[in-house]
Amino acid sequence: MKLRIVQFTPVFGNKQENFKRLQAHADRIATEFDGADVLVFPELCTTGYFFQSNDEALNYAETTDGETVAFFRAMAHTMDALVVAGFVERAIENGEEHAYNSALIVAPGQEVRIYRKTHLFYKERHCFSDGNTGFFVVPHHRLDAKIGVMICYDWRFPESARTLGLKGADLIVCPSNLITNVWHIAMPARALENKVYVAVPNRAGEETRGLEGETVKFTGRSVIYGFQGQELAKAGDTDDEILSVEIDPAATRDKSFNPLNDIFRDRRPEMYQ
Amino acid sequence: MKLRIVQFTPVFGNKQENFKRLQAHADRIATEFDGADVLVFPELCTTGYFFQSNDEALNYAETTDGETVAFFRAMAHTMDALVVAGFVERAIENGEEHAYNSALIVAPGQEVRIYRKTHLFYKERHCFSDGNTGFFVVPHHRLDAKIGVMICYDWRFPESARTLGLKGADLIVCPSNLITNVWHIAMPARALENKVYVAVPNRAGEETRGLEGETVKFTGRSVIYGFQGQELAKAGDTDDEILSVEIDPAATRDKSFNPLNDIFRDRRPEMYQ
Repeated sequence: MKLRIVQFTPVFGNKQENFKRLQAHADRIATEFDGADVLVFPELCTTGYFFQSNDEALNYAETTDGETVAFFRAMAHTMDALVVAGFVERAIENGEEHAYNSALIVAPGQEVRIYRKTHLFYKERHCFSDGNTGFFVVPHHRLDAKIGVMICYDWRFPESARTLGLKGADLIVCPSNLITNVWHIAMPARALENKVYVAVPNRAGEETRGLEGETVKFTGRSVIYGFQGQELAKAGDTDDEILSVEIDPAATRDKSFNPLNDIFRDRRPEMYQ
Repeated sequence: MKLRIVQFTPVFGNKQENFKRLQAHADRIATEFDGADVLVFPELCTTGYFFQSNDEALNYAETTDGETVAFFRAMAHTMDALVVAGFVERAIENGEEHAYNSALIVAPGQEVRIYRKTHLFYKERHCFSDGNTGFFVVPHHRLDAKIGVMICYDWRFPESARTLGLKGADLIVCPSNLITNVWHIAMPARALENKVYVAVPNRAGEETRGLEGETVKFTGRSVIYGFQGQELAKAGDTDDEILSVEIDPAATRDKSFNPLNDIFRDRRPEMYQ
């Protein structure tokens, strides 16, 4: 399975420019990287990250009928790939308008699926509603593989990847806008403890926003880990970059490592109280 | 708080010799390492590891009234330290005799506490009963600190350390007989994701046992991690060694890292189904 992830620097608030740049990366993957079976872009990649209020986030938010889903759906169709990308989602629930920090999962012939970020980071709490989809896995449209999605700060909670692992994920993708490097300590453990591939497309660059001119600097270093926690590919810390790895989803499914131990069957949930 | 852990090579089946060598390490800690507040020895440190049957394990097993608990209780008293050590425990439950792969926790003026290994590794399944104590924390007898215990293969399950963290552990100790090095991928994550110190006294050396002469080689590299997952001290891979670190248990308790995020309060257990 051809896994491709894109480290990307969006222009804040300029969707059309970002679509153009995202498409250029996709085109390059098609021509220079032998295409993709799974293609993943960072969190909030069409708008930039550092919203200042719920109103501002809603201003850029779209439902699944909007141009953002349409853009990635067309890309998925053209590339015959399952595409995951972060965007600001708008939803009306019980008569109330919500902005979610979401990831769309689109593949040819499949309904779009939306994962809404479970754990919100810092001022995201002022801009987005807590995700309410929970963690789930999506089958690939063409290959025998299941993909689970979490977003950025979800990494901090082993329960996120664990839930996806127990639901049968072979590959966990984590579109991110990370601003530290400590996640590199935990992410390989997420792969190892669940015996799954883990791919983290992070963004690079920085954004200065708000009246106080607060700057957030994104740390890049996007990475793909194998299911033993080993690093398979890693990006630098400043530029846009494409990471390209061949993975074998079926190899993740036997969770035993000797005739008497299996890392999922050995769990004892009744002792985790 | 003076944390000392001992990488140790026992002689299989020779408790008296092992007591002598363990005492020599304790004496060295008293004289050369400024003593200890918490002192931790590896899993099954008084007997060796590679039992071949439940009968053989029971042959070395002791209740908490036995000489092993008495030995470590005297050590704890002399050093005014909380001592944790792995041993083969014998218990009669519902009229049945059990051998457990256990750790004793003794401190001056406190009842002995016993943790029974939750997740059994490989042929331990033929020798020991599944631990039934669950994970719990023990207060230090003299200092403001709570210590949680897990044993060796428990590392593979993020739920082990998570349960101890949520119960208020400042320091998780993990007496071990590890035979790989992959645990070095996960252990720093255990520290980081729970903001706790983690100390792993492993053993060194090897044991060849049984009719087929199966050999297990222990990998040493005992380690102490700070609560950001950073390595504070690490042993070599072959010899007995004492690791000595000053830690600040109170520094682990504020789980927030900005005004809007706290790694324990941000958890959403209803989403981990």
